Amino acid sequence: MSSTFIRMLSNTSAKPIRHLVSISELSHTELHSLVNRAAHYKSLVKSNTLPPDNLADALKTQTVGLLFSKRSTRTRISSEAAVNYFGGHPLFLGSQDIQLGVNESFYDSIKVISSMTGAIFARVNSHDEIQQLVKHSSVPVINSLCDTYHPLQAICDMLTIKEQFNGDVKGKKLTWVGDANNVINDLAVAAAQFGMNVSVAIPQGYKFDEQVAAVATKVASEQGCKFEVVHDPLVAVKDANIVVTDTFVSMGEESQTKQKLETFKGFQVSKELIEQGQVAKDWRFMHCLPRHEYEVSDEIFYGENSVVFEEAENRLYAAIAVLEALVVNKGKFL
Amino acid sequence: MSSTFIRMLSNTSAKPIRHLVSISELSHTELHSLVNRAAHYKSLVKSNTLPPDNLADALKTQTVGLLFSKRSTRTRISSEAAVNYFGGHPLFLGSQDIQLGVNESFYDSIKVISSMTGAIFARVNSHDEIQQLVKHSSVPVINSLCDTYHPLQAICDMLTIKEQFNGDVKGKKLTWVGDANNVINDLAVAAAQFGMNVSVAIPQGYKFDEQVAAVATKVASEQGCKFEVVHDPLVAVKDANIVVTDTFVSMGEESQTKQKLETFKGFQVSKELIEQGQVAKDWRFMHCLPRHEYEVSDEIFYGENSVVFEEAENRLYAAIAVLEALVVNKGKFL
Amino acid sequence: MSSTFIRMLSNTSAKPIRHLVSISELSHTELHSLVNRAAHYKSLVKSNTLPPDNLADALKTQTVGLLFSKRSTRTRISSEAAVNYFGGHPLFLGSQDIQLGVNESFYDSIKVISSMTGAIFARVNSHDEIQQLVKHSSVPVINSLCDTYHPLQAICDMLTIKEQFNGDVKGKKLTWVGDANNVINDLAVAAAQFGMNVSVAIPQGYKFDEQVAAVATKVASEQGCKFEVVHDPLVAVKDANIVVTDTFVSMGEESQTKQKLETFKGFQVSKELIEQGQVAKDWRFMHCLPRHEYEVSDEIFYGENSVVFEEAENRLYAAIAVLEALVVNKGKFL
Repeated sequence: MSSTFIRMLSNTSAKPIRHLVSISELSHTELHSLVNRAAHYKSLVKSNTLPPDNLADALKTQTVGLLFSKRSTRTRISSEAAVNYFGGHPLFLGSQDIQLGVNESFYDSIKVISSMTGAIFARVNSHDEIQQLVKHSSVPVINSLCDTYHPLQAICDMLTIKEQFNGDVKGKKLTWVGDANNVINDLAVAAAQFGMNVSVAIPQGYKFDEQVAAVATKVASEQGCKFEVVHDPLVAVKDANIVVTDTFVSMGEESQTKQKLETFKGFQVSKELIEQGQVAKDWRFMHCLPRHEYEVSDEIFYGENSVVFEEAENRLYAAIAVLEALVVNKGKFL
Repeated sequence: MSSTFIRMLSNTSAKPIRHLVSISELSHTELHSLVNRAAHYKSLVKSNTLPPDNLADALKTQTVGLLFSKRSTRTRISSEAAVNYFGGHPLFLGSQDIQLGVNESFYDSIKVISSMTGAIFARVNSHDEIQQLVKHSSVPVINSLCDTYHPLQAICDMLTIKEQFNGDVKGKKLTWVGDANNVINDLAVAAAQFGMNVSVAIPQGYKFDEQVAAVATKVASEQGCKFEVVHDPLVAVKDANIVVTDTFVSMGEESQTKQKLETFKGFQVSKELIEQGQVAKDWRFMHCLPRHEYEVSDEIFYGENSVVFEEAENRLYAAIAVLEALVVNKGKFL
Repeated sequence: MSSTFIRMLSNTSAKPIRHLVSISELSHTELHSLVNRAAHYKSLVKSNTLPPDNLADALKTQTVGLLFSKRSTRTRISSEAAVNYFGGHPLFLGSQDIQLGVNESFYDSIKVISSMTGAIFARVNSHDEIQQLVKHSSVPVINSLCDTYHPLQAICDMLTIKEQFNGDVKGKKLTWVGDANNVINDLAVAAAQFGMNVSVAIPQGYKFDEQVAAVATKVASEQGCKFEVVHDPLVAVKDANIVVTDTFVSMGEESQTKQKLETFKGFQVSKELIEQGQVAKDWRFMHCLPRHEYEVSDEIFYGENSVVFEEAENRLYAAIAVLEALVVNKGKFL
């Protein structure tokens, strides 16, 4: 598309729209608000109580698009259930239904889709795609996973951590053992916003996203905690209250499995790592799922310190909280 | 997964959850209740009357998962429509969306899916899978077809039969001509619970499920009727009030078509079989669909004794009745 | 299926059902009513106003099937959103979910699907398929694109045109430059019903559907306007107020791309065509999307006379208006 027409490429809507692309763009107050609202909605759901003030009809007559380029169980169920929670209709468009950029320009598709929906959950491939979506959409876009960020997971994880420590998370240590990926990118910043010390162990030669590291370091400094990147899992897990990992082989990297497993030798979260590394007594294990045994042993994953299924369920409440702030309340954080 | 962690493998939910795997697990009263409620809802729908007591909002804010390993028209539409009838959101997950046991363990998937949904309709392959689902799910699981049972079809069929004979079904004869499959497994027990004589004709060398036969025989004895397995269709259809068949070649067996058709010679429900076999004067033909001509001739299938489309529509009311009992009323049968 | 059973092949429902297959079957009053109602609903949606009289619950408890043989972004989103707008559940059945005529007869599938749904949006391949659907369905069928008609697009386009000229469309000229396809078939008749002069430019050797031409000519005569088919785009665009085109290579014709582009030389809507052809000063460009550059240049498509995205959004209001008339109001046009 020629640059002559660039005026049409920017969102011309009068009122600014609040999207969610990464945790970094949320203020300290906004992030805490989202986690609190997620907890609030969880308590309502758990007590079989409908949300007050006709909130169950807040999105009545509205359709919310789910643009998913990749298969996803947790993200899909939590997004659809969240939209339905407020009375909206979740419309799932997978790669079978629509191939963004294939049959028509990405720009054209976004203009059209956003003109008929109230919001878009986007589970795209590249960060560039989510940026294009945000640029051209006339409705709020919620990043439901791109190759650089995963904000809904980070909100869900902070809810899970708060639950485990009765809200007393300031000064606690969160350790990541694994790849330098989208999940830790947002979780590191989120944990720092809650005053947690964050230690990230990634293999030698791996680089943590510099931009994210800068934000995490700044936020940690503001909140009086620490952010570090190391290369020895044993060093990272020392005194950890929370140990988190994720797959070493992301979707689309399956051909590199053998080489990656070699690189990640010693990074499996196992009984040995936990004992030798001397984690805190009252520690927890987390994982965003799906999980493979090479990154965490059965003993840990299904063990008594694991909160992985509580964490998975919390994805729902994170999605509800974000939908409330961006769509129901049109960008106002309670 | 090691057996050390077996404690996590059983459902730890405090209150017992009522699932539906097969007709055998329903008491006489419960089965009759479901068929009555199905008829009740049918009359409401047919008279364009919304269900009373805000039942159309009974599942408001709730999402119900449809885990379907195989394509299915009737089961999918009836399940989705039933969930919607009570105001819930049906979330369809086909084999394109989620492959149970492929990218993560079956156990993990079930834990996650059931934590974010209010119930699960499961159309899986093997009975073993439905058993795993029931074991690990924290919400009611409704078997929507496995290789051994098809309870929703049996409930629907009993509604259809009652309609055809104005409720007077005790002592009537139901004849199955075909394969010893999941459909007749549940229908035989259901018909016996209604006091019907059940005659099942399957080819020489075919075995009827022994466990099911034992239940059907016991129930028939309690209800003062008869259950028998024979190998001659002509014998089976004698005095039959209801003649039922199903495909001889189930999904996945397409490569065996030629051999199966050889085996099932003489089992086609045709004008000849009906006349020579001397069915009752006031007889009806039923079939759960989809249908192929080799198991029933056009003349019968589209003939005046056929109630196959009434039967298909009744799948909806069966699904509504089961959803009401297991989910809306949390296991209480009205 | 033998002709003996033809009596079962016709819809035996007592009250006549109103379907929508093409614009030709709508009276002048009915078409105007639909466009007016579409505008009415657009104003409600744009002002964030729920529809009055509990219309947002009009289809509560009802499921509406979307039978889509082909992928479609606009049609799918607008149909699902319209069903949801009235509180119904849109059930999308793509070619992955159900293959009409493959696993069971088309007739059987339609009987079953229509027995469990409140209406059917059908995006099929051939006009013959939509005719079969209409013949056998027990609920209203809305043609959402077949190879001969595209009524929802025509209703949407008339809404768009009325908006652009503040309702003053009588005597304005609509010019089509492109293939003699389903879109112009319905748009030509619709524009004539609004008193617009319609000029259709198609390549030499191409034939406009004779039946449609007859209807368009008759309607134009009734409304005091003109309908013509020409072969020179320059002649057609002269004094045009609206210039419309569509892809030259329809879905399924991709192998003929090179040959078709040769045939359509000179048919691209470009700055040159617009200037040399001397369109009216206050002209607009329209396109039903998706769009490729060979039928319209970037300059025009993204230029200031283009209303393509307003047009796309209007698909939603067209679907709402049709759903209201055929389903909510059971065939009564307001």
